[in-house]
Amino acid sequence: MNFDYRNVTIRRGFWKQIEELNSKVTVNAVYDRFFETGRIDAFKFEWKKGDDKQPHFFWDSDVAKWMEGAAYIMAKEHRPDLEKKVESLIDEIEKNQCEDGYFNIYFTVVQPEARWSCRDWHELYCAGHLMEAACAYYDATGRDRFLRAMEKYAEYIKRVFVDEHSASFVTPGHEEIELALYRMYKTTGKEKFLELCRHFLERRGLAENNEMNIGGSAYYAQNHLPIREQKEAFGHSVRAVYLYSAMADLALETGDGELKETCKALFENITGKKMYVTGGIGSTYYGEAFTICYDLPNAGAYAETCASIGLMFFARRMMLLDPENSAKYSDIIELEMYNGMLSGISLDGDKFFYENPLEIFLEERGRLKSLGKSERWPITQRPKVFGCSCCPPNLVRLLSSLGNYMYAYDEKSGEVYIDQFADSIYEKDGVRVEVSTDYPYDSVIKIKTNAPVKVRIPEWCHGFGTNKDHTVENGYACFGAGEFEVDLLMKPELVASSVNVVRNLGKAALRYGPVIYCAEAIDNGGEVHKLYLDPERVADAKISYSEELGREVIDCDGFLRVDEQTGKLYAPYSRKFEPVTVRMIPYHCFANRGESDMAVYLNVK
Amino acid sequence: MNFDYRNVTIRRGFWKQIEELNSKVTVNAVYDRFFETGRIDAFKFEWKKGDDKQPHFFWDSDVAKWMEGAAYIMAKEHRPDLEKKVESLIDEIEKNQCEDGYFNIYFTVVQPEARWSCRDWHELYCAGHLMEAACAYYDATGRDRFLRAMEKYAEYIKRVFVDEHSASFVTPGHEEIELALYRMYKTTGKEKFLELCRHFLERRGLAENNEMNIGGSAYYAQNHLPIREQKEAFGHSVRAVYLYSAMADLALETGDGELKETCKALFENITGKKMYVTGGIGSTYYGEAFTICYDLPNAGAYAETCASIGLMFFARRMMLLDPENSAKYSDIIELEMYNGMLSGISLDGDKFFYENPLEIFLEERGRLKSLGKSERWPITQRPKVFGCSCCPPNLVRLLSSLGNYMYAYDEKSGEVYIDQFADSIYEKDGVRVEVSTDYPYDSVIKIKTNAPVKVRIPEWCHGFGTNKDHTVENGYACFGAGEFEVDLLMKPELVASSVNVVRNLGKAALRYGPVIYCAEAIDNGGEVHKLYLDPERVADAKISYSEELGREVIDCDGFLRVDEQTGKLYAPYSRKFEPVTVRMIPYHCFANRGESDMAVYLNVK
Repeated sequence: MNFDYRNVTIRRGFWKQIEELNSKVTVNAVYDRFFETGRIDAFKFEWKKGDDKQPHFFWDSDVAKWMEGAAYIMAKEHRPDLEKKVESLIDEIEKNQCEDGYFNIYFTVVQPEARWSCRDWHELYCAGHLMEAACAYYDATGRDRFLRAMEKYAEYIKRVFVDEHSASFVTPGHEEIELALYRMYKTTGKEKFLELCRHFLERRGLAENNEMNIGGSAYYAQNHLPIREQKEAFGHSVRAVYLYSAMADLALETGDGELKETCKALFENITGKKMYVTGGIGSTYYGEAFTICYDLPNAGAYAETCASIGLMFFARRMMLLDPENSAKYSDIIELEMYNGMLSGISLDGDKFFYENPLEIFLEERGRLKSLGKSERWPITQRPKVFGCSCCPPNLVRLLSSLGNYMYAYDEKSGEVYIDQFADSIYEKDGVRVEVSTDYPYDSVIKIKTNAPVKVRIPEWCHGFGTNKDHTVENGYACFGAGEFEVDLLMKPELVASSVNVVRNLGKAALRYGPVIYCAEAIDNGGEVHKLYLDPERVADAKISYSEELGREVIDCDGFLRVDEQTGKLYAPYSRKFEPVTVRMIPYHCFANRGESDMAVYLNVK
Repeated sequence: MNFDYRNVTIRRGFWKQIEELNSKVTVNAVYDRFFETGRIDAFKFEWKKGDDKQPHFFWDSDVAKWMEGAAYIMAKEHRPDLEKKVESLIDEIEKNQCEDGYFNIYFTVVQPEARWSCRDWHELYCAGHLMEAACAYYDATGRDRFLRAMEKYAEYIKRVFVDEHSASFVTPGHEEIELALYRMYKTTGKEKFLELCRHFLERRGLAENNEMNIGGSAYYAQNHLPIREQKEAFGHSVRAVYLYSAMADLALETGDGELKETCKALFENITGKKMYVTGGIGSTYYGEAFTICYDLPNAGAYAETCASIGLMFFARRMMLLDPENSAKYSDIIELEMYNGMLSGISLDGDKFFYENPLEIFLEERGRLKSLGKSERWPITQRPKVFGCSCCPPNLVRLLSSLGNYMYAYDEKSGEVYIDQFADSIYEKDGVRVEVSTDYPYDSVIKIKTNAPVKVRIPEWCHGFGTNKDHTVENGYACFGAGEFEVDLLMKPELVASSVNVVRNLGKAALRYGPVIYCAEAIDNGGEVHKLYLDPERVADAKISYSEELGREVIDCDGFLRVDEQTGKLYAPYSRKFEPVTVRMIPYHCFANRGESDMAVYLNVK
C-alpha cells in the first residue's frame, strides 16, 4: 500500500481552492515573514554578536519545513520563484555545512561551544526537518545535492550518538529526527538510517539513560517509559505525535507486533479520550500538552495546529501499519482536514493560529481587569508570524501534499483506496481514478475508474446510496471498475461528547458531513453563550452559501435563553426561550471577521 | 430601631446548638490555636530578633476578634475561664501601650521604625479590631479599662492622621477602623470618634491623596473613587464590605441621602450581580476579590468566610439605614447564616474554611499532574488554624452575637421585628416576644408576644399560613400582641441563577427553606458531576434526619447520566439516564466526612 501526492491531481472545488491559496499566497507569505524576521539570511551564517535578529535554535526547522512545502509545490507546478529561493538556501547549506557534516545555524554562529549539550534545544529536531526537506526536494525534483548533504549530516549524527556517545544527551528533547531518519531510509534505501532511527526510538525512556526531564516532567518529552510501554499519550502533544509516527514507521518496517499494538493503543487513547471534536489535541497551554483523559476545556483549549498536522502524520502511518482499520484512521484525517488543522490558517491564507480554542468568551477573559491581572487565554485573531513560528510552514508543507491523504494504492490487490473526497484524479502506471464532486458542499461522489476502488464511508455517515453493485468491508464500499456514484447522504446533526467530558453535558456541537460548525457572536446579535440548539430541528436547518466567508453556513431554528427572573440573580428554576435563528459557520472560518465571542459547543434545549 | 444580642435568649434548636458549640468548643479551640502559634504571648511584647514565632502584623486583630467574641459569651454566661484570659490580655495591652497611646505588637517589637509607614500592613485595621473588642467588653461587662486604653489610642490616631499628617498614608489599606470608630462613638457618645470615622471615609479614593495602590490596583482597596461615587463593588471583598458597613453607619448618623443611595446601590450590586447562591462573595483568589458582574465560577469560588460575615454586618446596618427594605437585607442575613457563613466552620466546631467553593472536582484538579504542575484551587478540608487566621475568630464573635440579627426593636412604633427564626425570647423593658420553632427543620413559627410584631416573610417563601389577623407590609406580616403561629410552608425547590451567569445554564441548586443543599460524591456512589435533578419531582423529595451529620438531608428522585455512546468520545447527540436517588446535604455540611467531589449546582433534566 502506498500514498503519493505526486499521483494525485486536484482539479477543482474546496481543496483546489485551498491548494491554490497555499501555492499562490501562503508559501510566499511565510517566506516573506521568514525573510523579514531574519530566518532566511540566517542561513548565510553571517550573524555576529551584537547584530540584531539573533538566530533562534529552532529557525533551521522553520525554514526547512517551508523548503519541504516549496518542494511539493514544485513537483506539481513550474515555479522558478520557489526554485530560486530553495536553491539559494541549499547553496548556503552546502557552503556552511561543517567538514564533519554538522549543520546548525544557532550552534555554529551563536553558541558553537554548546553543540550537542542541551537536550531541549531542538538540535536533532532541526536536523530532522532539514532531512525531510531534502527527501522532499529529491522526490520532487530528482536533484540530490541537498539529500547528499543531509546523508553526510545523518552519518555524523550516528558517529556522535552511536559510536562516540559524545553528546551530553541520548535522545532528542523534541522528537522529529526519528521519522526523518526513516524517511531518509525510504528515500535512499540505506539501512544505516533505519538503524539510527531505531537507535533513537529504542533508547527513549530507558531509566539507564537518566535523561534530563524537560520542565521537570518525564512525561513532557515522552521520556517516562520505554516506547513499547507508552500506552497513554502524555506530554507535549506535537512531540508525542511525531514520536508515535516514527514508532508506527518502525513497526511497519520491522513487523514488530508489540510496537504495533502500542501504536494502536496510543491512537485509541488520543482519539478516544484526549481529542476535541474538531480534532484538536493537547488541551493545556502548560507544556502545550496532553492532560488527563476527558479533560477537554473549550475556552482554554491549546489544540496546536502542528499537533493536528502531526496527528494526520500518525494516522496516515497507521493506515499502512493497520490496514484493516484504515477507514478509522482516515476518518481522523478527514476531521483534521476540515477542522482542527484548517482552522490554523486564515481564509485569506497569510495569517495563522498556533492555538485553536473551541470557545471565546471575551467578557470572562476580563474578569480580573479591575485587579490589574489577566489570565492566560488563547489569542483571538490570527497573526502573520510568531516568535515560535512552527505552525505556518507546517501548514505550507501539509497543504501542498494533500494528495498524500486522498488516495492509497494497494499493490497486492490492485485496488485504489479513495480516502478523502476531492474533485481529483489518481493516475499511476495505467491506473486511473477520476472523482468528480462538490464535497463537502455536496454529498455525491462521482467515480470513474479503470481499477477496483474502495470508497471510505465516513464514520459520520449513517448510510449511503449508490447506483452500482458493491460490498462493504471495514468501513469501505468496494466497487469494481466502471462509472458510478456514491451519495454519502449528509444532514446537519448534533454531536455530543462522551458523558465523561462532564463540562460538556447539556451541550452539543453541530456537524454537517465532515465539517464541525461553530457560532460567532458577530452573526448572532452579539450572543453565543445563551444560544440553544433544538435537536429535533437541526436536520431541517437551512444551508446556504456565504459570499463573505466563501463557505456554506447553516441557519438553525434555535433559541435564545432569556431572563425569566425579572432581573433577579436567583429565583425558582424555570426556563424561558425566545425563538431565534442560530447562524453556524464552519469552525475553521472563525476569527476571520474580527474579534468575537465564539462557541463550538452550544446548549441544547 | 435597634438590635441588641443582650436582649435575646436562644433556648433550643438549630441555633442553640451552634451557639453552644461556639461557646463550648470554638472559642476555646481558637484560643488554643492562637496560644500555640504565639499570638497570645505576643501581647507580652517580649519577642526579640532571633526568637521563633515572630509576630505578624495582623496578629493583634486575630486576638482582638477573639476577645470580642469572648465578651459576647461573657455577657450571657458565667465564664471565669474566658474572663481570666481576656483580663490577662487587657493587662498586657495596658502595660504595653505606648505613652502616646499607640498599641501594635508588630510595629513595636519587630519593626518599630516602620510605624505608620506601610499602608497595607494592617496597622489601623488592628487598631479597629481592638476598639471593637473594647466596646464589646465594656457592653458585656461594664468594665472600662480596655475601652479607655482604646480611647487613648483613637485620640492618638486622630493626632497622627488629622492634626499632624505624620503618617505616610492617608487612609488605611484594609478598612475596619472606620466602623470601629463609629462604634467607639456609639459606645462612648464622644463626637470626636465619629469625626475621625468620617475623616477616614471622606478622604478615601480622593485623587489628591495619591495613595499607594495595593497590588497595582486602585480597585483592590476601594481606592478608585471617592466613596459616594462607588456604585459597583470592587476589590478585596472583606475590605469592601467593611468599608460599606462604615459608610452605612455614617449615612445613618448624618442623614446623608447621597451616601445612603450609594450604600443601596452597592448592596444591590453585590447581591444582585456578584453573590453566589450560598451568599458567598468575592469570586476570585486573586486579591480575594470581586470580579465582574455575573462572574461566579463554582469550583474556583473564593467566597471567603469573613466576606460573608462582613456582608451580614453591612446588611444589618442597611436595615437601620433603609428600614422600608429591611426584609430584603434580612433575607441576605438568613442566606449567610445557613450557608455561606456557616460553611466556614466544621460540624465539630474546631476547623475552618477560609474559602468556600461551590464545587469540588478532584480529578480535574489533577489535570496537569503529569506535567509536574498544579493549578490553584480552594482547599477541600477545613484546617484548625491558618497563617492568616482571620476567619476563625470572626466566626467566634459572629456566632456569639447571633441575637443581633434576630430581633429589632422599633422605639417609635413599639414594634418588634422578628427577622430570623430561632426558638428564642426577646425581652427588654417589659416587652417580651417568645418564639417557639424547629426552624429550619419545621416551617411553623409559634409566637407569643405582648407587643405588636412584624414577622419577616422570607423571599424564598411562596406564601404563608397563619391563624391570626394580620397585614402584610414591605415583606413583613404584621400582627398585634397575642399568641399565634405562622407557617412558612417550606418545600424543596430548585433555584436557578440569572441567565447572565452563563456557566450555570442547564444547572440549578436545591433550596429547602433558607438552606442551600449540595451533593457530595460520598453519598452518591462517587459521582456528582453526572447527576441530574428532575424539576418535576423535587418538591416530593424525601426529607430525613441524618445522625451522621446531625442535620436534615434530602433524597431526590433524580438521574445519573450514563454513556449512550458505547464508549465513543463523539457520537450523534442523545441522552441516556438511569434513575437514581440523589442525596443532597446542607451546603454548610460539606467536607465533614473526608475529601469528596461536591457540587451545589447540579444538572437539570
